[in-house]
Amino acid sequence: MTEFRLDWERHERTGTSEAVLCEPKTAAQVDAIVAHAIELGRRLLLTRLGNRKFTRLSAPARAALDYDAVTRTAILGGLPAPRGSGRVVIVCGGTSDLAVAREAARTLAFAGEAATLHADVGVAGLWRLMERLDDIRRHRVVIVVAGMEGALFSVLAGLVPCAVIAVPTSVGYGVAEGGRTALHAALASCASGLSVVNIDNGFGAAHAALRILGEAPGPAPTPA
Amino acid sequence: MTEFRLDWERHERTGTSEAVLCEPKTAAQVDAIVAHAIELGRRLLLTRLGNRKFTRLSAPARAALDYDAVTRTAILGGLPAPRGSGRVVIVCGGTSDLAVAREAARTLAFAGEAATLHADVGVAGLWRLMERLDDIRRHRVVIVVAGMEGALFSVLAGLVPCAVIAVPTSVGYGVAEGGRTALHAALASCASGLSVVNIDNGFGAAHAALRILGEAPGPAPTPA
Amino acid sequence: MTEFRLDWERHERTGTSEAVLCEPKTAAQVDAIVAHAIELGRRLLLTRLGNRKFTRLSAPARAALDYDAVTRTAILGGLPAPRGSGRVVIVCGGTSDLAVAREAARTLAFAGEAATLHADVGVAGLWRLMERLDDIRRHRVVIVVAGMEGALFSVLAGLVPCAVIAVPTSVGYGVAEGGRTALHAALASCASGLSVVNIDNGFGAAHAALRILGEAPGPAPTPA
Amino acid sequence: MTEFRLDWERHERTGTSEAVLCEPKTAAQVDAIVAHAIELGRRLLLTRLGNRKFTRLSAPARAALDYDAVTRTAILGGLPAPRGSGRVVIVCGGTSDLAVAREAARTLAFAGEAATLHADVGVAGLWRLMERLDDIRRHRVVIVVAGMEGALFSVLAGLVPCAVIAVPTSVGYGVAEGGRTALHAALASCASGLSVVNIDNGFGAAHAALRILGEAPGPAPTPA
Amino acid sequence: MTEFRLDWERHERTGTSEAVLCEPKTAAQVDAIVAHAIELGRRLLLTRLGNRKFTRLSAPARAALDYDAVTRTAILGGLPAPRGSGRVVIVCGGTSDLAVAREAARTLAFAGEAATLHADVGVAGLWRLMERLDDIRRHRVVIVVAGMEGALFSVLAGLVPCAVIAVPTSVGYGVAEGGRTALHAALASCASGLSVVNIDNGFGAAHAALRILGEAPGPAPTPA
Amino acid sequence: MTEFRLDWERHERTGTSEAVLCEPKTAAQVDAIVAHAIELGRRLLLTRLGNRKFTRLSAPARAALDYDAVTRTAILGGLPAPRGSGRVVIVCGGTSDLAVAREAARTLAFAGEAATLHADVGVAGLWRLMERLDDIRRHRVVIVVAGMEGALFSVLAGLVPCAVIAVPTSVGYGVAEGGRTALHAALASCASGLSVVNIDNGFGAAHAALRILGEAPGPAPTPA
Amino acid sequence: MTEFRLDWERHERTGTSEAVLCEPKTAAQVDAIVAHAIELGRRLLLTRLGNRKFTRLSAPARAALDYDAVTRTAILGGLPAPRGSGRVVIVCGGTSDLAVAREAARTLAFAGEAATLHADVGVAGLWRLMERLDDIRRHRVVIVVAGMEGALFSVLAGLVPCAVIAVPTSVGYGVAEGGRTALHAALASCASGLSVVNIDNGFGAAHAALRILGEAPGPAPTPA
Amino acid sequence: MTEFRLDWERHERTGTSEAVLCEPKTAAQVDAIVAHAIELGRRLLLTRLGNRKFTRLSAPARAALDYDAVTRTAILGGLPAPRGSGRVVIVCGGTSDLAVAREAARTLAFAGEAATLHADVGVAGLWRLMERLDDIRRHRVVIVVAGMEGALFSVLAGLVPCAVIAVPTSVGYGVAEGGRTALHAALASCASGLSVVNIDNGFGAAHAALRILGEAPGPAPTPA
Repeated sequence: MTEFRLDWERHERTGTSEAVLCEPKTAAQVDAIVAHAIELGRRLLLTRLGNRKFTRLSAPARAALDYDAVTRTAILGGLPAPRGSGRVVIVCGGTSDLAVAREAARTLAFAGEAATLHADVGVAGLWRLMERLDDIRRHRVVIVVAGMEGALFSVLAGLVPCAVIAVPTSVGYGVAEGGRTALHAALASCASGLSVVNIDNGFGAAHAALRILGEAPGPAPTPA
Repeated sequence: MTEFRLDWERHERTGTSEAVLCEPKTAAQVDAIVAHAIELGRRLLLTRLGNRKFTRLSAPARAALDYDAVTRTAILGGLPAPRGSGRVVIVCGGTSDLAVAREAARTLAFAGEAATLHADVGVAGLWRLMERLDDIRRHRVVIVVAGMEGALFSVLAGLVPCAVIAVPTSVGYGVAEGGRTALHAALASCASGLSVVNIDNGFGAAHAALRILGEAPGPAPTPA
Repeated sequence: MTEFRLDWERHERTGTSEAVLCEPKTAAQVDAIVAHAIELGRRLLLTRLGNRKFTRLSAPARAALDYDAVTRTAILGGLPAPRGSGRVVIVCGGTSDLAVAREAARTLAFAGEAATLHADVGVAGLWRLMERLDDIRRHRVVIVVAGMEGALFSVLAGLVPCAVIAVPTSVGYGVAEGGRTALHAALASCASGLSVVNIDNGFGAAHAALRILGEAPGPAPTPA
Repeated sequence: MTEFRLDWERHERTGTSEAVLCEPKTAAQVDAIVAHAIELGRRLLLTRLGNRKFTRLSAPARAALDYDAVTRTAILGGLPAPRGSGRVVIVCGGTSDLAVAREAARTLAFAGEAATLHADVGVAGLWRLMERLDDIRRHRVVIVVAGMEGALFSVLAGLVPCAVIAVPTSVGYGVAEGGRTALHAALASCASGLSVVNIDNGFGAAHAALRILGEAPGPAPTPA
Repeated sequence: MTEFRLDWERHERTGTSEAVLCEPKTAAQVDAIVAHAIELGRRLLLTRLGNRKFTRLSAPARAALDYDAVTRTAILGGLPAPRGSGRVVIVCGGTSDLAVAREAARTLAFAGEAATLHADVGVAGLWRLMERLDDIRRHRVVIVVAGMEGALFSVLAGLVPCAVIAVPTSVGYGVAEGGRTALHAALASCASGLSVVNIDNGFGAAHAALRILGEAPGPAPTPA
Repeated sequence: MTEFRLDWERHERTGTSEAVLCEPKTAAQVDAIVAHAIELGRRLLLTRLGNRKFTRLSAPARAALDYDAVTRTAILGGLPAPRGSGRVVIVCGGTSDLAVAREAARTLAFAGEAATLHADVGVAGLWRLMERLDDIRRHRVVIVVAGMEGALFSVLAGLVPCAVIAVPTSVGYGVAEGGRTALHAALASCASGLSVVNIDNGFGAAHAALRILGEAPGPAPTPA
Repeated sequence: MTEFRLDWERHERTGTSEAVLCEPKTAAQVDAIVAHAIELGRRLLLTRLGNRKFTRLSAPARAALDYDAVTRTAILGGLPAPRGSGRVVIVCGGTSDLAVAREAARTLAFAGEAATLHADVGVAGLWRLMERLDDIRRHRVVIVVAGMEGALFSVLAGLVPCAVIAVPTSVGYGVAEGGRTALHAALASCASGLSVVNIDNGFGAAHAALRILGEAPGPAPTPA
Repeated sequence: MTEFRLDWERHERTGTSEAVLCEPKTAAQVDAIVAHAIELGRRLLLTRLGNRKFTRLSAPARAALDYDAVTRTAILGGLPAPRGSGRVVIVCGGTSDLAVAREAARTLAFAGEAATLHADVGVAGLWRLMERLDDIRRHRVVIVVAGMEGALFSVLAGLVPCAVIAVPTSVGYGVAEGGRTALHAALASCASGLSVVNIDNGFGAAHAALRILGEAPGPAPTPA
């Protein structure tokens, strides 16, 4: 028995590529997966790969990976030339939400989509959002990243016609409850048509954006 | 043993009067309390007195009470001439939050304070708030009443210098969780200096406003 | 003070129209809103309007509304000719989820978008999903409606490249917790790129689909 | 893109100054913000800046900051001469709640308001509160800081006419649940007119006090 | 198979008698149990027997039972002459908590223990507690019944040396959460030596008091 | 202002002495309290004093304290000669619950009460409990300490007539939820007359036992 | 589109038949399903069909169904001759848990398995369990049904070698939390090898028992 | 008093052996238990024994134990020759769930049962499950190990006739809530006849499988 079985055909089926969530895996497991991908000549995105675990990878794995400690992502096989740009904008409530916002940006870049990023536009100083509103409206998809009470989700969705994907973050303390309050605020928003991903899931928001931008291919390959 | 013991000296101690929370009491208990207050010639505010329970009160009690079914409040002894006005404004996120907003207004009126009320200024259509902002800013205390995701709390607190009291309401469904999401949003707000009362507690918000407006009296009476 | 203030310009700003959430409103408030819209000659969608409340509306309001008891929606001003079709498909886990699925369909129809609906394709009998997979894949947006454990969200998102919007429903008992388990399953899905709306929120899912299909208009109107 | 955008005009809009919540920020981000403020000659309050993160700041930042490890606050630009005193009193349930109480005191001092502090007046030994009651009643605002079951909030609010701001703390274990029990006790208090801030949020309580003491300025500046 | 099997020897084993929790039972089941006890000539206490279910019992059962609608208890076989008195006092936070307090009193009476009851001594008016403190201190066991934030538990336990049994009640709304806040307040109390029973469980508090008052009998009967 | 104010008269009021909960206090605060007690010649019990914090106390404090790392308790002034014994028995579900059981034993010893301890009598091997049942029944108070699902509470309370105090522990994982499942099992027990203290609160259980054993003194001293 | 699509091949795939969960379905939907099954000559089990909904079914449906109001189950097509017996025993904590226990028994009977039922063997009177233990041990599968604190699960699993399936019920109040405490107690049990189904899910426990008794058929039919 | 009391007769009573849960025990306690078992010549399984605690055991204990760091299990006395095989299969959703899956396998091996293990068959790539389905169906018991949203539980149970034991794992973040979402998904599954054990409880799943495979012995030994 091998410990993993990558789903290389996922892109053909769903338009989004297999990626490796490293947080619950041991360094040895991540190492084996990277070695396997290198062997097959495949590109790969690794997420939630903490700095400590990265340094415990084998030297060849570390050499092969383009690692970014802030977003805890690593890329094997480099970034493609952007196939699209100006279609996705990422708006970020506070400086503290930037790591998640950049995880989304890097996931998009891995898929060849260049995104614009507007940081620190929290609603406590609403003018910061207002002065960037015209630029935001020019995009097809807005990824909004916010923690604490997540009021930015509603305010923005009430002002723009784009597809809006809310990413609640775990920023905050006490009743912020590790992002649950921002998550619930996004889901219970009085501004309609918002859709939401898991807490701190910049990666998932990027994939949701890619699905929105994508063209539906033909009939699915046989699943077995 | 009698079943109740009213705290008629509360106003002297705390600046706010004893009131009767009727929801968990039987009609017989409410009746007895009202009869006792009539006997003593005292004014009294009754809250959370549902229509069904009101109709089960004795005829004299019903005759003596000024009952309002929407806010579920009843007043014994009439309203005083307003001693103050223009100091408290109540801002209300949606039409659905009006019952709570009016409970606050009626509690203030019982204490002689006239309040202004702005309804339906939810953030999904932000212009509705903006066009009333100048008026809101003229008051010392703003009571903000909102349900669902409670984004209005943060937006408003970021725009005005007044004391801001947030009243989350149980309006919403699913993850709105009977007002918990709005409550947590108010407490975790990125706009600082908000203070918060229990879900649907328009009465409590009014009392908090009265404490803010009040003048601290001298040393407390001996508690026993 | 009037009790409501409709946001007629919302469609220009966000591409989705103002709608009226009737559940927390009194019959009198709903009546007043409908009368106001009739006066202005506006179309209007009412959601979560229970049968009992509908029968308590005034005769003119009832006459003017096209009411559907199963989805608890009412439409004022009729349905437009479909401007689009074949772009949105609604997939429904069990017979019990149909009311929510049809709320989504009716919201889309109100906006001129005709949707396909596949019912009762729960994962306990996976062949029911498999035999419809080719049809599902032909659409740009899939709205998936499921309660209980919500496994359908992951299975479907792993098989199609479309934008996938998950609507968890409150179908189930015990630990299904009024839809929370299905909601969390959608958010924590191992199939990436799913986005999620509030429990039982067929209306919101439809609006999210409309945002995805829409074309971003020019710069926003001044918000105040 | 810069990573932060400070809201220097906040004081003009809301009467409370921008402050920097350091907990979710990297040392590099805090460093950059401090450097920017020094460059502009602005005063700044930093909160939730743990000792470890403080020692990782650059030497110039550390030199410029007046850092207090107990309250985890740092002040740039020094304290102003007190513009007011004798208006705010801070009452603290147990020795363990002192860090939060002092965060409130330091936030007030940063804004020029001198506060009195009464420590260790928990209700298990009620006489400790009673012997200070006359002094407490002389103030306009009481900030009450308590953890565990938070009974002090109700007892004090039943005895004084001042504006009462409850700060639940995370002191306690088991069902104290990181402060949730004290928070809920404050919100569900049988003593009316209490208002409440987030768990451990001494900073927010101070800002709420400042809003209460403040004079409402004229119409708001244009938000964008 | 018979549907029930009463544990008539419980009193010999534990000092407290078998009682019948009627809420989750059908009227037919309660009827059969009562008939069986009548047949055996046994006394029986029935708890949580709502008025509607009582009226659906058979005529003989209804005739044999001493039913009290407020406490939802029924007694078969009458009350014994009190074997003890002046040992248990029941203190009750608000008028709304009286039903639970009286369930405790009636359970004690069924076991031959007469209890004193002090009603409406909530902490919002602390003088009401203080003026009865000397009487309370004369008892061996204090049962304290309170809802909302349950501050009374701590205040009282800090003032008396008696065994203190806290009964949180479901009185309150919003974050009172059906009694959970009062329950947690009792458990997390800063006054030590409190012990606690389930929400609204006046019956259980009475049994805990009886265990405290009881004399330990000799070795247990063989359990099988 | 001093940071603490000990309640030396507590024993006279409540029959249980002041103790110091060290977990949320800094080493400096604990040090100051110990020094103060030494100065006054008072005995003192310190609880939840972790090994790391103990080693950071000043040398004189460490020398004066009788410290026990397993129970995290320290005693200043030595143990008194036992004034009672054979009245309290502590029964402990698993080896893992021993630290909490011994905290109870040490708290009792500090008050002069010697307790018997039966360890590892979990219900998965019921014979272990049965063979000690006769000894357990001879005591007036049983303190039962158990984690995980807490079935021991119900089984034991169904077999003995003693006062039973349940101490749920945080032993367990997953849905054991840090002791919440054991706590709820104790409170919802089908065996009546159990009373319950906070999770891991061996100290509180001992104080509850002392209250049960105690003689009610005369009228309370004036609280202020 | 038809509203339902029954999975008649389920028995071949999984050894358990399709059943209809009626609670979230409208009477019209249940009616249509029954009519369809009658037309095809299929047997069918309906669960959670409340009395009120049953009476709203069409006359032919009502005539064709063998309905049992206590268990809220209905059977179409009659019961088969038992193919097995003496293999499954159902043990029931209290009289109140009988409805769920009988739902399990009826589900087994529908599949041709006769089960033994022992009622009212709660742990508060342990002798009731002990005297039936020898009979219980003779079966291959024990279904244990209990509410409140669910101590019976652990006690029984510690005494018998059979496969043990725990069914927590919603019997209880306060912290019993609609069955969550019993559920968690079963999952966190110190007696190993218990397995658990959803709250009140007698149907599911019966199916789990059938899977245990079944013989694994050959390779699966192609799923699509 | 000794600190532990092993239940060596458990296998005779329940068919599963006593095991030692090491997580909440001190190294000294584990050491003493191992020494005792060595002395008696007994085999023993230790679970949740972290690497750090293992290294703190005495040299003789470490030498005697067959320790596996990934599953955190240790075996004293070696593995028996398999008495059965081909009866249990373990299916594992992701690479990250392998540690739990292997804890189950090792627990089975300790009891003489050899199990097959299929890793990384998550539903996001359904073909991985489909190609192993025929092998899985050949077994009597399937242990399914999955985290995140746990969709694999429902998909698999809908395809095979075997007894299915679901083991939710704590793999995931945000709303995965340490395994609660996977747990609830397993319990609320639309595929009937699943049974479930605690989060990360591979040990318990193995014991449940052993109970299913076991032969019921004769009447129980007297419990005391």
